[in-house]
Amino acid sequence: MSFKPLDPDFNNKIRESFSRQGFMGFIGAELTGIRPGYCEIQIPYKRELSQQHGYFHAGVIGTLADNSGGYAAFTLMPADSSILTVEYKLNLIAPGDGELLISRAQVIKPGRTLTICRPEVFVVKNGAQTLCATALMTLMALHEKPDRPGEGSR
Amino acid sequence: MSFKPLDPDFNNKIRESFSRQGFMGFIGAELTGIRPGYCEIQIPYKRELSQQHGYFHAGVIGTLADNSGGYAAFTLMPADSSILTVEYKLNLIAPGDGELLISRAQVIKPGRTLTICRPEVFVVKNGAQTLCATALMTLMALHEKPDRPGEGSR
Amino acid sequence: MSFKPLDPDFNNKIRESFSRQGFMGFIGAELTGIRPGYCEIQIPYKRELSQQHGYFHAGVIGTLADNSGGYAAFTLMPADSSILTVEYKLNLIAPGDGELLISRAQVIKPGRTLTICRPEVFVVKNGAQTLCATALMTLMALHEKPDRPGEGSR
Amino acid sequence: MSFKPLDPDFNNKIRESFSRQGFMGFIGAELTGIRPGYCEIQIPYKRELSQQHGYFHAGVIGTLADNSGGYAAFTLMPADSSILTVEYKLNLIAPGDGELLISRAQVIKPGRTLTICRPEVFVVKNGAQTLCATALMTLMALHEKPDRPGEGSR
Repeated sequence: MSFKPLDPDFNNKIRESFSRQGFMGFIGAELTGIRPGYCEIQIPYKRELSQQHGYFHAGVIGTLADNSGGYAAFTLMPADSSILTVEYKLNLIAPGDGELLISRAQVIKPGRTLTICRPEVFVVKNGAQTLCATALMTLMALHEKPDRPGEGSR
Repeated sequence: MSFKPLDPDFNNKIRESFSRQGFMGFIGAELTGIRPGYCEIQIPYKRELSQQHGYFHAGVIGTLADNSGGYAAFTLMPADSSILTVEYKLNLIAPGDGELLISRAQVIKPGRTLTICRPEVFVVKNGAQTLCATALMTLMALHEKPDRPGEGSR
Repeated sequence: MSFKPLDPDFNNKIRESFSRQGFMGFIGAELTGIRPGYCEIQIPYKRELSQQHGYFHAGVIGTLADNSGGYAAFTLMPADSSILTVEYKLNLIAPGDGELLISRAQVIKPGRTLTICRPEVFVVKNGAQTLCATALMTLMALHEKPDRPGEGSR
Repeated sequence: MSFKPLDPDFNNKIRESFSRQGFMGFIGAELTGIRPGYCEIQIPYKRELSQQHGYFHAGVIGTLADNSGGYAAFTLMPADSSILTVEYKLNLIAPGDGELLISRAQVIKPGRTLTICRPEVFVVKNGAQTLCATALMTLMALHEKPDRPGEGSR
């Protein structure tokens, strides 16, 4: 699918929004890909992100799925809007056993109010990627409420 | 509902498992309540847990929902089993605007293989609690695979 | 929870809408309870509603959950709006083995645009009720688009 | 993805199981495609399947999604097993406005106990297909409990 962004500056808008998320910096997440209707986020393994068996914690996997889905949808929204996660459903498919986590989210259906995305999370071990989780999520655009207060509504 | 745990030592087992989750210590989560079929986890606000508007990040909210649901189900599982999150669905209902996040998860339907839980996440602001997210999740018991390698199977 | 309906005529509006759903009559469903934020629908067993083992088909269980959730949300919406199911998640908990299916849906969080509901489906066998399925769903109000064309917008 | 069925007779097993579902005959559903990890079901429009505006009822859409997902998973299960829908989540994306509904379900991740599927429902109007709903679902194999009593366990 090919999508046409409503905000020509979507790339900067999203990189700037991402950089304001304290949690992304804290867990070491990096925004590694943005294009209309798509977002990719990566996070290298560290012990602080583990569950009880030493693998990536499901909370980290869910966080990447949620955040990549949100920004994938946000690429298609107008400049003066902000975005809200309405809900998501996540199936955990394989243990988060590896040195890197990559979440790739694709918009399935954009809409003025609601957008549907499909994030997929892969775990990389010795260079091989395994599908670790798949999600289905609903996002909402809040119109005339720019993501960065004081901007966008100019 | 009243549930009878299969493992009389469930409380210690869960506290010990929780303490091995590097991610819980890293984000500052505390296990504040366990009883058969129930688990409560809290996390005080810090800037490192924020999204772009300074509220608790949805990833943190999802992490607490997932983890409290997992341990609620684990209270009812036998000593020699470990637990796996199959999937969950989370509706975000109000912004995570407050000084404390509390997740309370209740088992709705226990089962030998699958258990269904309902985690609810509240945000506390100036002492008042607001429902911030509600989830519905499916957990699976892995029998004869104790959570702590070398133990449980004794 | 107690809710205040925006449309004082919500009861008639919903009964009339339900009666226009060809599928409800076809499967023999009856609207057995409406109050603000709540809806109950029942359906007696017949062979035509069965899956391969003779129980109520999961499709019938899902249909009742969806429809009761939709009308529970619709009780709280204004007269000139119609309603759309955004999404739902359904956990099937016990086989639909019995003579009657009852779905009861409760609004958890009403909103101007989105409303969150929790439908629960019970199966009745020899008079005893068993929880058969539980759901979590998101509904959207379409404002200034009345459910019944030509009415509501008067 | 290419999958290898454990039961060489999976095609007949599924057609026979489908024919025993009273609900499929009642609503006029036809099994139009089976291969390993995949199932397609169609249903022509009739007034008895409508919601209040005359379109296909969401309950019918959900029924097709659920049933196609179940049989897609069942293609990969051994002869002596039966299948259970654990849960599914369905996003309704476009109104069911058309003369035919087609559900196509694909296995994403097969497993000995749990299988994950992705059903997609299309509505056909004047020959053009529109994505009407997308789902994500979890199925469970019940081993040594054949779908057809008295058979499979031979």
